[in-house]
Amino acid sequence: MLIDGISRQSIESNDNYKVKIIDQTLLPHELKYITLNSFSDCCKAIKDMWVRGAPLIGVTASYGMFFAAYENPSKRNLNEAFKKLIATRPTAVDLKWALENIIKLIENAPTKEKADLIWDFASKLEKESIEQCSRIGDYGLEIIESHIKNDKTINILTHCNAGWLACVDWGTALAPIYKAYNKGIDVHVWVDETRPRSQGAALTAWELSKHGVNNTLIVDNAGGHLMQNSKVDMCIVGSDRTTSSGDVCNKIGTYMKALCAYDNNIPFYVALPESTIDFNLTSGVNKIEIEERAQEEVTLVRGINELGKISNVKITPNFVKSHNPGFDVTPARLVTKLITDKGICRASRDGIRKLFK
Amino acid sequence: MLIDGISRQSIESNDNYKVKIIDQTLLPHELKYITLNSFSDCCKAIKDMWVRGAPLIGVTASYGMFFAAYENPSKRNLNEAFKKLIATRPTAVDLKWALENIIKLIENAPTKEKADLIWDFASKLEKESIEQCSRIGDYGLEIIESHIKNDKTINILTHCNAGWLACVDWGTALAPIYKAYNKGIDVHVWVDETRPRSQGAALTAWELSKHGVNNTLIVDNAGGHLMQNSKVDMCIVGSDRTTSSGDVCNKIGTYMKALCAYDNNIPFYVALPESTIDFNLTSGVNKIEIEERAQEEVTLVRGINELGKISNVKITPNFVKSHNPGFDVTPARLVTKLITDKGICRASRDGIRKLFK
Repeated sequence: MLIDGISRQSIESNDNYKVKIIDQTLLPHELKYITLNSFSDCCKAIKDMWVRGAPLIGVTASYGMFFAAYENPSKRNLNEAFKKLIATRPTAVDLKWALENIIKLIENAPTKEKADLIWDFASKLEKESIEQCSRIGDYGLEIIESHIKNDKTINILTHCNAGWLACVDWGTALAPIYKAYNKGIDVHVWVDETRPRSQGAALTAWELSKHGVNNTLIVDNAGGHLMQNSKVDMCIVGSDRTTSSGDVCNKIGTYMKALCAYDNNIPFYVALPESTIDFNLTSGVNKIEIEERAQEEVTLVRGINELGKISNVKITPNFVKSHNPGFDVTPARLVTKLITDKGICRASRDGIRKLFK
Repeated sequence: MLIDGISRQSIESNDNYKVKIIDQTLLPHELKYITLNSFSDCCKAIKDMWVRGAPLIGVTASYGMFFAAYENPSKRNLNEAFKKLIATRPTAVDLKWALENIIKLIENAPTKEKADLIWDFASKLEKESIEQCSRIGDYGLEIIESHIKNDKTINILTHCNAGWLACVDWGTALAPIYKAYNKGIDVHVWVDETRPRSQGAALTAWELSKHGVNNTLIVDNAGGHLMQNSKVDMCIVGSDRTTSSGDVCNKIGTYMKALCAYDNNIPFYVALPESTIDFNLTSGVNKIEIEERAQEEVTLVRGINELGKISNVKITPNFVKSHNPGFDVTPARLVTKLITDKGICRASRDGIRKLFK
């Protein structure tokens, strides 16, 4: 998507084996590109969350394996590298999937070809991720178009960041919105702040604005009121994990937005690539283990201080304790449709089974 | 309630016409008492939200009218004062109620007696507010006791701050919790942060902790997940305005919590003094004008910086716009019971009519 008119990706590689990312921890306050030159650069980028979002982590880790092979293609070094990369973000499914495929790919390859094989794998993964998101966007665009009434602005609410910054380009939940905008549809996005890490405020509002999409930031509490008052035509969110029956595990707070949408007859869509579907998991509520994250995510807030510097403030005294579950589960009954790279389906066992055979 | 073992009120007056409040904008980082010495002090205290919460605003505004009469008891000045005070917080019902009663009270009173009449009215209102909240606490305590199972901890979720800081003492939603705690009941409170002003994090967690009540801060997004996973036994919130049919206008985000409670068969109680009931208003959704507040409440976050100073950080760049509705309306169908100073009733026309005749 565009940043101030220039087309960019969240990770960019070129023929000189150069890999460039954005340090997303500095967004929305500073746009800083970082060139990854080594295996350890890639590990750091994932571990310190310069890159985040399942698809982007998978691609970055693949380039990490390239650098490992380039630096020392011995089997021992590559196994070490595999372990180190897996450990950077233990819950990331795409990362594990990509690394296991790389290990298989180079298992019997001649030593001096390993690096090139991995490079090709990584750049193919990068391109495939873009195509996958673009397809989600195309399917989602059909849905957006079906909701347009009398050429009025279409108001879409989204939660967290499932945009191009989380992927390589387009995004998942935001892909249909970018497609609609690019087609000249008058779209406006209500952006949930998404406490505690505020990815809506920091990333979604930033990337939509930079591309030119009209958007308004709201606190997580406001969505219900907007839906009650006909200010939201549809919701689109992403998914971290989807069960085979259509339950959606996504950023904490998604479930409440789905309840509101349901209570106000507003369609609630979830956009996701096939890779997030866990075909072995039949039900989500109480079944998916929810990551508990650090209390500091709740109590420390990052922003620009009076001196113009990026800085943290602590919103509570030390005697206040907090609890920080990272995700929640939205039952399939609250999900209108799933928008995937393979097409649109009902959030149900039958719907998913038919689409993915 | 207690602050570090000492009994305090949110507004304290004495026989020397001294009125003392806490600057609640500095909480939870600094406990600063401010003496209100003039009409304009009182306006500022309400407008700048040093004091907030319907009952506390009502009492503060009454003392404001006292100062107005003390400064210049002419009819013209008092009418001016009335208008200025009304304008400080247009949605606050208690404020309007108190001021209208004061105007009636002094209508035919001799000029030199006006100030004293208003002082008596204000200090009576202060005492009555405490008694009223105490009664809400007693009725609510019965409900809490009815939900205790096998001597287990009872987990109560609350939104925003409807504690003693919002009233004069006890609070509305928190009064039953203080009564339960004081009686030795093992109560634990889930405190919603309540963005954008974060009154949960800043005030509720603070006042509960200072009194000794076990509590845990959560982001507004987390409540749904906790309710889904049986971590909440009941919810109690306050009300800024209640319709004669039991719809509840309260801090933005209340409606979503009520939806969650309903979806998980968790009782959702609203605690309120009679004064918040608008007997002329039959329905709340789309009928109550919702205050739109400044964008800065969303984009500026206050806390303690690295140097230990109270400081703001801006969480978004200037090009990000935001929208900030202050309240939402919870339909009566989602409210289990109303806990009032006159007793407990169903959130319905019949329930309210029977209780208040």
